Amino acid sequence: MQAAIDEAIAGRDEGGVPIGAVLVHNGEILGRGHNRRVQSGSAIRHGETDALERAGRQSAAVYRESVMYTTLSPCSMCTGAILLYGIPMVVVGENQTFLGEEELLAERGVDVVLMNDQRCIDLMAAFINAHPDVWNEDIGEDSA
Amino acid sequence: MQAAIDEAIAGRDEGGVPIGAVLVHNGEILGRGHNRRVQSGSAIRHGETDALERAGRQSAAVYRESVMYTTLSPCSMCTGAILLYGIPMVVVGENQTFLGEEELLAERGVDVVLMNDQRCIDLMAAFINAHPDVWNEDIGEDSA
Repeated sequence: MQAAIDEAIAGRDEGGVPIGAVLVHNGEILGRGHNRRVQSGSAIRHGETDALERAGRQSAAVYRESVMYTTLSPCSMCTGAILLYGIPMVVVGENQTFLGEEELLAERGVDVVLMNDQRCIDLMAAFINAHPDVWNEDIGEDSA
Repeated sequence: MQAAIDEAIAGRDEGGVPIGAVLVHNGEILGRGHNRRVQSGSAIRHGETDALERAGRQSAAVYRESVMYTTLSPCSMCTGAILLYGIPMVVVGENQTFLGEEELLAERGVDVVLMNDQRCIDLMAAFINAHPDVWNEDIGEDSA
């Protein structure tokens, strides 16, 4: 989780949404990423999808032995990516600032481990407070 | 749908998985894309996500008035992206070579329109027959 938090901090320091993720296979990091909406104008590079993209092409067998660490509860898109590739476990930094599709993941047999890490909460709370418009855009919500 | 099929054909002609998609807002194409697993070594650029990426950052209000046209039934990841952004309608070229998450889309209130277009079926059937390993990788399945 520290590597995912490091990614989130890197994203924040680039002026972006501070969410990071790391895909780990047998204790080795295959890919690490962070949200790139602000930095790259990206609609699909969330923490988890960026980590998957940076991990490159992998076989189903590898994904099925991997764990996704993410600083924030996964949104619908990232949940779908986890389901597509049959990643069996997701470790979630926190779900207090945003509750994603943890229920759908669990229904489909994915093991969801919630850490409630205060560092993850603080990163998101500060960003949402400073840039509510960007955050709403990132999760497909209208701005207040 | 013709624009989505054109994208699928462009992907095929690049040696890639022949799936294309187009995001349309009020009759205007915001983004068009195709699967880029082979061309870019991408794990997250499917037809629909590539179209979303190429459409760039859009507000929730725009997505909510948009339609996603895709040549193939959307996988879990692309379904999740459609749900994230609240796209209310998906027009699907075919679901005979692969049945995605149409049921989940419908459960969440998305209008799914199935065309059963023979051109879409033929494109996928030819690719799956020629490159079953790449196709299995694209949908997170073991190779036969």
